[in-house]
Amino acid sequence: MRIAPPDRLHARVKDVRASLAARHLDGVVVTSLANIAYLTGFFASAAALVLTRDEVILIGDSRYSESLANRAHECPFIRPRQLPIGDSYEQGLVDALIPLRGATLGFEPDHLTVRRHRYLTRGLEKIGWEPPLVGCDGVVEHHRSQKDDWEIAVLRDAGARLSNVAKCILSNVLGGRTESEVAGQIDLELRRAGFERAAFDTIVASGANAALPHGRAGQRRIEPGDLVVLDFGGVLDGYCTDLSRTLIVGPAGSRERLVIEQVVDAQRAAFAAVRPGAAPESVDEAARSTLAGYGIADAFTHGTGHGLGLEVHEAPRVSRVRAGQTEPPLGPGMTLTLEPGAYFPGWGGVRIEDDVLVTNDGAEWLTDAPRIL
Amino acid sequence: MRIAPPDRLHARVKDVRASLAARHLDGVVVTSLANIAYLTGFFASAAALVLTRDEVILIGDSRYSESLANRAHECPFIRPRQLPIGDSYEQGLVDALIPLRGATLGFEPDHLTVRRHRYLTRGLEKIGWEPPLVGCDGVVEHHRSQKDDWEIAVLRDAGARLSNVAKCILSNVLGGRTESEVAGQIDLELRRAGFERAAFDTIVASGANAALPHGRAGQRRIEPGDLVVLDFGGVLDGYCTDLSRTLIVGPAGSRERLVIEQVVDAQRAAFAAVRPGAAPESVDEAARSTLAGYGIADAFTHGTGHGLGLEVHEAPRVSRVRAGQTEPPLGPGMTLTLEPGAYFPGWGGVRIEDDVLVTNDGAEWLTDAPRIL
Repeated sequence: MRIAPPDRLHARVKDVRASLAARHLDGVVVTSLANIAYLTGFFASAAALVLTRDEVILIGDSRYSESLANRAHECPFIRPRQLPIGDSYEQGLVDALIPLRGATLGFEPDHLTVRRHRYLTRGLEKIGWEPPLVGCDGVVEHHRSQKDDWEIAVLRDAGARLSNVAKCILSNVLGGRTESEVAGQIDLELRRAGFERAAFDTIVASGANAALPHGRAGQRRIEPGDLVVLDFGGVLDGYCTDLSRTLIVGPAGSRERLVIEQVVDAQRAAFAAVRPGAAPESVDEAARSTLAGYGIADAFTHGTGHGLGLEVHEAPRVSRVRAGQTEPPLGPGMTLTLEPGAYFPGWGGVRIEDDVLVTNDGAEWLTDAPRIL
Repeated sequence: MRIAPPDRLHARVKDVRASLAARHLDGVVVTSLANIAYLTGFFASAAALVLTRDEVILIGDSRYSESLANRAHECPFIRPRQLPIGDSYEQGLVDALIPLRGATLGFEPDHLTVRRHRYLTRGLEKIGWEPPLVGCDGVVEHHRSQKDDWEIAVLRDAGARLSNVAKCILSNVLGGRTESEVAGQIDLELRRAGFERAAFDTIVASGANAALPHGRAGQRRIEPGDLVVLDFGGVLDGYCTDLSRTLIVGPAGSRERLVIEQVVDAQRAAFAAVRPGAAPESVDEAARSTLAGYGIADAFTHGTGHGLGLEVHEAPRVSRVRAGQTEPPLGPGMTLTLEPGAYFPGWGGVRIEDDVLVTNDGAEWLTDAPRIL
């Protein structure tokens, strides 16, 4: 697994520091694991980070002692703190924060449970630090949503590999196999292509199951005439990719073929709407109005897409406007999925999904494989 | 996927209601997805639940409309509420709670972020409901930790299947293949054995990587003389299993063989300590003191085990006592892992892990496969 080079990580830390200063914060307690990986290259199932004007304190536990030492060695700006065995991360954070008493520190309300927040607050109030922490969501995520050159190179590489996996799978005969068998083959091809793991539980939804946007892969045997939705992605160097195709098994029925063409058309319209400055909801609207033109708007029961990077669902949200919320406009370096679909309970469903990069003047496909088969 | 029968789910709801009454609560807002699945059989990547003295309100979004309807159809005690497209779960909860205004409701501080909690609190305070929600952690988890007959049958079945996967994998020649290739084969065998998916990212850690308790599976090619830690599990009907073995590739070195025997001995000692009424830390101590007797206590850098069920890590925690915390004693129906290990940076590591059920008078292995190969 390649990790972003130290100078790149340091540049990210400096960008976040500038955002903190603009919010009049002396630092931030980071508890999102993806945000920690972004700033330090430390990938773990548990960690905590304190980032201040002049320190980057990375807290890990004994299971990660080697990688913790490695990170500090590679990146001199990182100060590692290994938790004493048996101590909780909450206690580790309190201990790390005590010397910073009185500073104005942010925390991530979206990535801290009420229980952990109470523990921290009480621990800090005990030493007379009040109010100890200020909620500040999305500071690191804002920077993460605009990928840097290193990340774009990884995502282009990952997209090309995922496209190859798709081509390999799509050339297979699916009829007669169970959904789970096909999913197993996809997962194996993802590893063969160099991915560390699947980005999410691979979906193979056939026949009536294809009408469930969140069907998984079960023991159903795929039959001639079935529509089969395949939705899968791999993680490369920590970065997620995500692709869907819908196949017709055996001779194509006319309705099946028509709906696939309509959804592909909706995806094409969404792609044409992607450019810097565009509102994410205008991309959603482009797909939605295309399907409305075909009279099947009601069958499209989810959003058009989502950002992707260190997490398989991250900013931006490419969907209808949610009451009281606005999404920032698209900007160069954002990577997102375009995945319109149409679902008809009892009959089946179609979803076509690819990943795109917002460029300086439009969009670039990160994944590409035949859409109509 | 089999789901617990409606009368079983209803019995669980009644048990939780009794616990709520004992805490003088009129109900609870459940946001842990595993707790929701336990009480309703609704498995989803997003959901919320309001359980009161006489209602079970299950909130889902449009992607899950079919399964939501199915749950309500199967279980007449469940009242489904589908979120309007675009609404957040927080808003869905506020809307569902308004008619209950004035009730004393609990929430799960461990399963609610600060942001969502603030949203709920503000939404309810607006209608003059104050204090709207009371923190009450672990109410559902307490019941989940003692599996009922239906769950025990599933876990026995899952354990037998996982043991077969282990026997199949252990009979393979690993030398010359990459860690990732072996992990891919394990994942495929898990699906062949009927598991819905892997319970966690399969670990294949060879050579010096075996010294990392949380190593994953990389591109390293396995070589003669390597120790290889394999750690994998499958999910059956929503329930997780977890097993580790450590292999020596090629002719066994004497130190490699010795450490494996010592760790197997520690696991045997832990198993002998499992019985109703035993403190979880006494099970940990049994493993730890065995390794101390061999002079390698310092090489055992994690806890002896964890509960498993709908989550791969759940109560009880089988580890050293954490300052200020006590774990309840073991009771019949609890299922847990026993996974002592010994790790030597630069040399390699060993972990041996099986799943056990606490019975009325001792313990029963849920998984079993040769430990010394």
